[in-house]
Amino acid sequence: MWQLFQFPLCPFSRKVRLLLGEKGVGYDLVRESPWLRRDEFLDMNPAGQTPVVAGEGGITLIHSQAICEYFEETCPRPPMIVGSATERAEIRRLVALFDETVHNEVVAPLMSERMLKRIVLRTSPDAKALREAMKIANTHLDYVDWLLDHRRWLAGAVLSLADLAAAAQISVADYLGGIDWRGHERTKEWYAALKSRPSFRPLLSERMEIVTPPPHYDKVDF
Amino acid sequence: MWQLFQFPLCPFSRKVRLLLGEKGVGYDLVRESPWLRRDEFLDMNPAGQTPVVAGEGGITLIHSQAICEYFEETCPRPPMIVGSATERAEIRRLVALFDETVHNEVVAPLMSERMLKRIVLRTSPDAKALREAMKIANTHLDYVDWLLDHRRWLAGAVLSLADLAAAAQISVADYLGGIDWRGHERTKEWYAALKSRPSFRPLLSERMEIVTPPPHYDKVDF
Repeated sequence: MWQLFQFPLCPFSRKVRLLLGEKGVGYDLVRESPWLRRDEFLDMNPAGQTPVVAGEGGITLIHSQAICEYFEETCPRPPMIVGSATERAEIRRLVALFDETVHNEVVAPLMSERMLKRIVLRTSPDAKALREAMKIANTHLDYVDWLLDHRRWLAGAVLSLADLAAAAQISVADYLGGIDWRGHERTKEWYAALKSRPSFRPLLSERMEIVTPPPHYDKVDF
Repeated sequence: MWQLFQFPLCPFSRKVRLLLGEKGVGYDLVRESPWLRRDEFLDMNPAGQTPVVAGEGGITLIHSQAICEYFEETCPRPPMIVGSATERAEIRRLVALFDETVHNEVVAPLMSERMLKRIVLRTSPDAKALREAMKIANTHLDYVDWLLDHRRWLAGAVLSLADLAAAAQISVADYLGGIDWRGHERTKEWYAALKSRPSFRPLLSERMEIVTPPPHYDKVDF
């Protein structure tokens, strides 16, 4: 059985878990708090970040995109980086947009202000940084609305890793109260469809210690 | 012919150019300064970042890793994400380590302090931020030394995209005077071997306006 080192609000671990769920790959969760910089974890991943996936034959897979590409190659059904080379490039573009731009501009500041400051630093969040992150979140949701005006799923006609990467980042932002859903009906419908998938249900029921989500967080009809 | 939108010190464009060079794929360079946030460029790539590769059939490829995966799929010889699924995961882990961790901790601060502040903001660099970036660069070079004590190339026995991604980031840091090569003989040998490749030579001869590199920058024997 694979072991997945993660913590409940790690958006990159969520992306991997959604992929493994869609592909029906089983795994055990191992709780890892990367901010503690545990020696044994740093020996496994010098970058010090979750997720890490460890397997039976001594295999260690590191970095969410490397992990997703590995399972796409070794467990190709159902495909999640799907289509022609050009379509696959569009999926990977969107994955990177959410993993990097949306993460850095929205999810990372929310995690820093509303999670790390509470759990680790025991200080108050910076209201200005939170407002700025939520404002940027709104412009990214506008872009998702626009994509969904033109496509059934984010990258095209079928569900792909782009949807899973986007839902992973958005779900963490939503848990941390950083998403104002008003005016984003198309994105809300798309997110409700993802929330109701069996791959997503276990994630929505998990909680981070101390930090509680808003009441709508785990409801499919929100 | 492909068009590659980039500027001379964009490390991610350098990664793509090294890959295209190794695969013998031709392209024209188009100068793009992403900090100007040109409307036509933002229409092409909402993330506003270089590199973007545009092709004849209206194909637009965005994000360096999506571009590299595209050419790996469509021009498989010589392979640059090479080997078994596990070996390919190790290549992608290292690519991400250089594209994300090394970039964010070392190359991005150097570009901000020594390039953007000179060209765009016309202010002086922050000496403390520069010292910190160079200190972290040194610990990353220690890790490259360690990898090269165990492997001929960064990810294993053969040249791969991991070497190109690493060389791309290191070359920009070196141009900006951020690398102290003393004590890193193994990495220096590896980098000299890369510098002498035909894919690397054109990059080393290009210059960013105003910002000049140290004298050793383009010398294979440095």
